[in-house]
Amino acid sequence: MQNLYQFQTAERIIAGENSFQKAADHISLLGTDIKNILLVTQPSMKRLGFADELKNQLTNKGIHVDVNIQIQPEPTLENIEEVFSEVSKNSYDIVVGLGGGSILDSTKILSVLMTNDCSIESILGTDLVQHPGIPTVLIPTTSGTGAEVTPNAIVTLPDKELKIGVVSKHLYPKLVIMDPVLTVSLPKEITAATGMDAFTHSLESFISNKANPISDMFALESIRLISSSILEAYQQGDSVRARENMLIGSMYGGMALSSAGTAAVHALAYPLGGKYKITHGVANSMLLPHVMEFNMDAVVHRLSLVAEPMGIITLGMSKEQAAAKVVEKIKSWTYHLNIPQDLKEYGVKDKNLEELAYSASQVTRLLNNNPKTVEMKDMKMIYKKLLA
Amino acid sequence: MQNLYQFQTAERIIAGENSFQKAADHISLLGTDIKNILLVTQPSMKRLGFADELKNQLTNKGIHVDVNIQIQPEPTLENIEEVFSEVSKNSYDIVVGLGGGSILDSTKILSVLMTNDCSIESILGTDLVQHPGIPTVLIPTTSGTGAEVTPNAIVTLPDKELKIGVVSKHLYPKLVIMDPVLTVSLPKEITAATGMDAFTHSLESFISNKANPISDMFALESIRLISSSILEAYQQGDSVRARENMLIGSMYGGMALSSAGTAAVHALAYPLGGKYKITHGVANSMLLPHVMEFNMDAVVHRLSLVAEPMGIITLGMSKEQAAAKVVEKIKSWTYHLNIPQDLKEYGVKDKNLEELAYSASQVTRLLNNNPKTVEMKDMKMIYKKLLA
Repeated sequence: MQNLYQFQTAERIIAGENSFQKAADHISLLGTDIKNILLVTQPSMKRLGFADELKNQLTNKGIHVDVNIQIQPEPTLENIEEVFSEVSKNSYDIVVGLGGGSILDSTKILSVLMTNDCSIESILGTDLVQHPGIPTVLIPTTSGTGAEVTPNAIVTLPDKELKIGVVSKHLYPKLVIMDPVLTVSLPKEITAATGMDAFTHSLESFISNKANPISDMFALESIRLISSSILEAYQQGDSVRARENMLIGSMYGGMALSSAGTAAVHALAYPLGGKYKITHGVANSMLLPHVMEFNMDAVVHRLSLVAEPMGIITLGMSKEQAAAKVVEKIKSWTYHLNIPQDLKEYGVKDKNLEELAYSASQVTRLLNNNPKTVEMKDMKMIYKKLLA
Repeated sequence: MQNLYQFQTAERIIAGENSFQKAADHISLLGTDIKNILLVTQPSMKRLGFADELKNQLTNKGIHVDVNIQIQPEPTLENIEEVFSEVSKNSYDIVVGLGGGSILDSTKILSVLMTNDCSIESILGTDLVQHPGIPTVLIPTTSGTGAEVTPNAIVTLPDKELKIGVVSKHLYPKLVIMDPVLTVSLPKEITAATGMDAFTHSLESFISNKANPISDMFALESIRLISSSILEAYQQGDSVRARENMLIGSMYGGMALSSAGTAAVHALAYPLGGKYKITHGVANSMLLPHVMEFNMDAVVHRLSLVAEPMGIITLGMSKEQAAAKVVEKIKSWTYHLNIPQDLKEYGVKDKNLEELAYSASQVTRLLNNNPKTVEMKDMKMIYKKLLA
């Protein structure tokens, strides 16, 4: 636990079923003279009608809206730069991101590119963005990344086979709209992977060396909400109640990680994304139980504390038993949610483990948060478990 | 419970034991060209050396600091206007408030007066402040009001014998510093009254008609922290651990009430402050158990849910029993904390109850949040219990 800690989040959060229907009302309160808005979104939001609905809401208020759907899933630096060179021909008062974590992260980066005369490359790292961007509005459509409330944006560097983050206080949005209705049509496998990703954020924040009273509150409430609803959201996707728990739970996960950071699971996941195109949620979900087993001797007490919020009856159990039950329950979710378990399916071979472990060992920003030192040999052992 | 809900808070929160020692480092990050700071504080902070310590920290960074200690406890509109006419002779980049709720509220109002060409009178009410103020930094030295994270500032109107609020999103501060060390020397009676005030914020938010999943999380965690530490903070004021729980607990209370609002306790408390100079914390503390008893039939379920966070073992109890235990425990705190119980001590007489109830009935903004309608006769009955 850290003695000194901090908390920062989106400036304003609007939440609840059908809150999206009033999105333009809230957006138009951000300024007295909003004329042009860039809406960054993804093809599925066009297809489902949500992008047009938002555009219509804003148009009815006399605001001109350009829609861009050129951001790719887990976007490369080049992809975001291309979109920027396209949209920077116009001038916008606000950028709205409507989509999953890739859209939200890209929206944040576009916003600061619009006011800072810089390349993306020059802001990769922590606190390298000089000036605030233009105001952003983030509207998540998955329950996973918590990107709507974090100061992080992740980009892929294909030539270096790396995923790397821009971390800056200037990436926090002005407004977030959390409507579970937007997530109801999320496909099952994305519900599973993003939900486990959100759970990973909270669990890693809770055992992080930088955990603190504020991050703990968000982490435990997130764990409680996700644990109560992840299987229901997967099996019965139209349950708005379960979708709302997942959405708010993933937001709390983002708040927890903003304050406490994530750790070894994330460090090991990035090379799987960078080199083997395994999506972030799937990579985290695959690694989570194995990294927790590795961490076990250092985190028995903390893991035992999450048993109760996970719905595990701990009466009469020792701490060791409660902590073991936590890992067991995560494994059972992995099974019921059909999370992939074999890295071979993605082309990973035994001979690649050394290189993967080396890449992961470079993510010191996150490895420093891990409650137990992770050596190269440990990382290889963990990856190896996924090559059964 | 409300379907649509929102959350907003201070832009950045720094917390932890001795975080005040680095206050100037965090303040100087707020801008690249900070030259002049107004420090609004109270005599006790001068006496304890904290005001000078902060001034020295800032001076060492080449920042000029003017210190003002002219704000009175529970300040009148005229008092704040006098201070404004004094300080507005100079131009400041930032206003820092270091003190209890009265100092923090006044700092917020001074900040918006500096940029809006308006009187305080013209902004009394909700959303009447036109433009953002100059950036504020709030450093609470009591654990009570939660003012550091709310959009509210309360002023006293002596000629109308009223306390009334400025409510505006422009009152949220840029930075909050939460150091329990600043609260260690808080006198016992202020520890008691402000602590019960914070508890009242959380309990009223939790039973408010506008309660929602976000405010509930803050309210319950606040109740948990305060319940675990209020007697220890009172009896053993130098326990930094208890002081930190109270400080973070009162901040969460402020976050809960920002989202869900307070209710009848606060409505009935304002006339006691406006007419009889009973401090806000004492008035809330006196009223809390009696208003909860009045509310009981409408809030049995919600009250029963706070029993466990209050440390009450509920195994085998009915909801009614658990809810009754909650009120019983509040009453026992009132006793152990030596909260005044008799309005006569403040000059209130039987014949004044009608007028008090009438004043309270005007605070519709808060009464509308109460889960049970409160008629004039009910208010008189509640006040009457404090005239035993």
